[in-house]
Amino acid sequence: MSENQLLIYNTLSRKKEVFEPLIQGRVGMYVCGPTVYGDAHLGHARPAITFDIIYRYLSYLGYKVRYVRNITDVGHLENDSDDGEDKIEKKARLDQLEPMEIAQHYTKRYLDAMDALNVLRPNIQPTASGHIIEQIEVIKKILDAGYAYISNGSVYFDVPKYQHDTNMYGILSHRVLDDMIAGTRELDGQAEKRNAADFALWKKASPEHIMRWASPWSEGFPGWHLECTAMSRKYLGEEFDIHGGGLDLLFPHHESEIAQSVCAFGHPPAKYWIHNNMITIDGKKMGKSLGNFITLEEIFGGTHSLLAQPYSPMTIRFFILQAHYRSTLDFSNEALQAAEKGIKKLMKAFEKIKSIKPSADKVIYSPKIMQQTIEAMNDDFNTPIVIAHLFEAVRHINLLLEGMESIKADDLLRLEEDFTTILQDILGIKAQYNDNSQHLVDGLMEMILDLRSQAREAKDWKTSDLLRDKLSCLGITIKDGKDGVTWSKN
Amino acid sequence: MSENQLLIYNTLSRKKEVFEPLIQGRVGMYVCGPTVYGDAHLGHARPAITFDIIYRYLSYLGYKVRYVRNITDVGHLENDSDDGEDKIEKKARLDQLEPMEIAQHYTKRYLDAMDALNVLRPNIQPTASGHIIEQIEVIKKILDAGYAYISNGSVYFDVPKYQHDTNMYGILSHRVLDDMIAGTRELDGQAEKRNAADFALWKKASPEHIMRWASPWSEGFPGWHLECTAMSRKYLGEEFDIHGGGLDLLFPHHESEIAQSVCAFGHPPAKYWIHNNMITIDGKKMGKSLGNFITLEEIFGGTHSLLAQPYSPMTIRFFILQAHYRSTLDFSNEALQAAEKGIKKLMKAFEKIKSIKPSADKVIYSPKIMQQTIEAMNDDFNTPIVIAHLFEAVRHINLLLEGMESIKADDLLRLEEDFTTILQDILGIKAQYNDNSQHLVDGLMEMILDLRSQAREAKDWKTSDLLRDKLSCLGITIKDGKDGVTWSKN
Repeated sequence: MSENQLLIYNTLSRKKEVFEPLIQGRVGMYVCGPTVYGDAHLGHARPAITFDIIYRYLSYLGYKVRYVRNITDVGHLENDSDDGEDKIEKKARLDQLEPMEIAQHYTKRYLDAMDALNVLRPNIQPTASGHIIEQIEVIKKILDAGYAYISNGSVYFDVPKYQHDTNMYGILSHRVLDDMIAGTRELDGQAEKRNAADFALWKKASPEHIMRWASPWSEGFPGWHLECTAMSRKYLGEEFDIHGGGLDLLFPHHESEIAQSVCAFGHPPAKYWIHNNMITIDGKKMGKSLGNFITLEEIFGGTHSLLAQPYSPMTIRFFILQAHYRSTLDFSNEALQAAEKGIKKLMKAFEKIKSIKPSADKVIYSPKIMQQTIEAMNDDFNTPIVIAHLFEAVRHINLLLEGMESIKADDLLRLEEDFTTILQDILGIKAQYNDNSQHLVDGLMEMILDLRSQAREAKDWKTSDLLRDKLSCLGITIKDGKDGVTWSKN
Repeated sequence: MSENQLLIYNTLSRKKEVFEPLIQGRVGMYVCGPTVYGDAHLGHARPAITFDIIYRYLSYLGYKVRYVRNITDVGHLENDSDDGEDKIEKKARLDQLEPMEIAQHYTKRYLDAMDALNVLRPNIQPTASGHIIEQIEVIKKILDAGYAYISNGSVYFDVPKYQHDTNMYGILSHRVLDDMIAGTRELDGQAEKRNAADFALWKKASPEHIMRWASPWSEGFPGWHLECTAMSRKYLGEEFDIHGGGLDLLFPHHESEIAQSVCAFGHPPAKYWIHNNMITIDGKKMGKSLGNFITLEEIFGGTHSLLAQPYSPMTIRFFILQAHYRSTLDFSNEALQAAEKGIKKLMKAFEKIKSIKPSADKVIYSPKIMQQTIEAMNDDFNTPIVIAHLFEAVRHINLLLEGMESIKADDLLRLEEDFTTILQDILGIKAQYNDNSQHLVDGLMEMILDLRSQAREAKDWKTSDLLRDKLSCLGITIKDGKDGVTWSKN
């Protein structure tokens, strides 16, 4: 590995490559975001945290990053088809289900969960429904280039023709066309398509389909792969640095994005393709039918039957960072409890750095964590190695606290600074918000009022009055009534 | 006033009218939201809180409300014109200013401020940039109806023709056409317009104009009045119940919205038009040039030179609710300090209801606050009267606490329930988050550790150990070192 060079594993080449942005000092990064018709679950946490780490590290290196993560809100909600086509069209707008209301509801919940996980907001979060004109423009370009055809008001991408002319379908996923025919997600519209592998760029809406827009071909809606092509182009340009997403999006989504860009703009959209691996639960794939589909809200609250306890957002974040993003990660109570213990140990040591007093009389510790972190992060964002180095530093912090090692004043200063930068800026781990403070205040007040009662019983009025005055300085008024002492905050 | 009927002052008729929704049990409400190219200021707080109150009260009455508030993100940002037309077009996308990034940044800040003010999120918050196709559709309808014309790639609404045929321009603002000619906001494009009063439906973009979309007339952007017509139609239908906004939007914005709807769909969009009055600062209009332009963040933090202290979001909310929404409201430190005192008194009494013990032996108090609240709210959402009734109840709560009045058990239960409903659900006032708890915990711990030191000095090991054990139960570990006692939370 070359020193001080960032290496990124590029799915396109299946190799680690030196990162060189297209424009010096700037990075354009596009990541596939959530579909907002349900609550965020474990499967959303991993890509969000993976690309948050990449965003944070690129920013730490001094790059000006424009990070775009889309929101897929073009859903396939339908009005009750029992109403019949005529009735649907005559229904008052206010009486109809409104997909945008549902989409915005879940978008807010998704962002709240991401905020809890301390995932930074991307610079731009464009919605598919808000970029219909831009998508229509891309379709027109692909039609003009001859790689799409209109069929019954819908527009399809001609995969075999693209493959014949370019031999590029499969460059990302390494699949061959014959294997892919059964792999398309599309179940309807088979009769309209020339080839089984073709995918929709525009679909004519059936009468009960609610989300629909005017287009040159029909009232309808864009195909799923298209939004990312249109929106990455709008905000990052036709060629940008990094395209990311979960490994489950490699095919057909990202492969189709490349095909669209090649036909519309003459080249693939991104230089580096980064994919995070999947999360399994107790060794099994997550899925609604398997009963192991756990939302983030359930995890934070501990309300799913598979969970032994609640796990805080920072425990989840730490758990995810303990594995390299390209490894699979198995979610289990044991693993989560270990992560909880680990982050507590780390944060405790971090808080105690302040208590260390510098000297230079025993075994001297000279921290190297920043250099070690940069080396690990430069090697394809290797967060587990960074964490291992932090734990090694924790061992020294505890030795320093016990007086078994010593540290020079400037090294101590650097230790605290570096620990802060690595923990908070690069890994995005923050001290947990303590929501038990009311409980704690109540407990402490009970103790103080008990001590005051004892003083009063012993006729120690001096202590009793002193306690009342001190509480008053803290904004607490106590009142002696016939049923005992009550207190209130001013 | 008819009993149990909601009366709303309709700007259209300049009268209070009985509220009768178009569809039984449902209400569609559209309110003009913020332009997101700057921080939210005092002028944003008033409409947001006014329509939040209306939304809450209609929901309280049992209506299923769909509340839509738009986000104006079609801005007039320009690329540096020194670059020249050619250079701009060749500039890499990533090197260009991206309006969407700025718009989403300020949208988040706006929503954070609204969350702090406990303003409920509307059901749908559509963006102007996300509804270009819908706006183009409305323009086509107005062109087809003959009330717009194309000029040099732009499309203008023909105000005199509309006025000649319908005699409707002015029905909302009560202005006459001659007075209005100087009143249009548009300064450019005068040469393209047939009449000075005409307004743009679509503007051709100049080369340096960044936000631009393809349309049948030019690459350009929609006129400001149009977005509300297109988005209210999409989410509420061509005719809906309530259209709201600040009084400053009455003309030309709302008047033009009516004109657009009449020409495109044959009738005005809304049945009831509700306008909140303006906020002045020390008697003067708020404005950047006057140096009295205060953002909500500055108010919450107390960081503007005109502010004597910080004011919490709930103080601001209470201050705004103390005036009727159709009155002007003058912002001054004196008025804010009075509001702060008022809300503290109210919340204190509310918390103390729990301490009242029911009996029926003296002057009996029977609360009527719910009935009084409904009467006041039914009279055009009269929140100051509701607050006056709450303070009357506070007087009784204090008499009850002092034992000067008595209350029956079921009345007490009702008092607490009604107070909760009125305060939290209808007025949207919540207990302030106490961000001083760390300070309080530190102070209480200092008191307890002092008492423990005293016990140890007196060789009262029993008390000393008891305190340590009790703290341990609260999750606090104390450690006796040579420099004194330290403590930490586990």
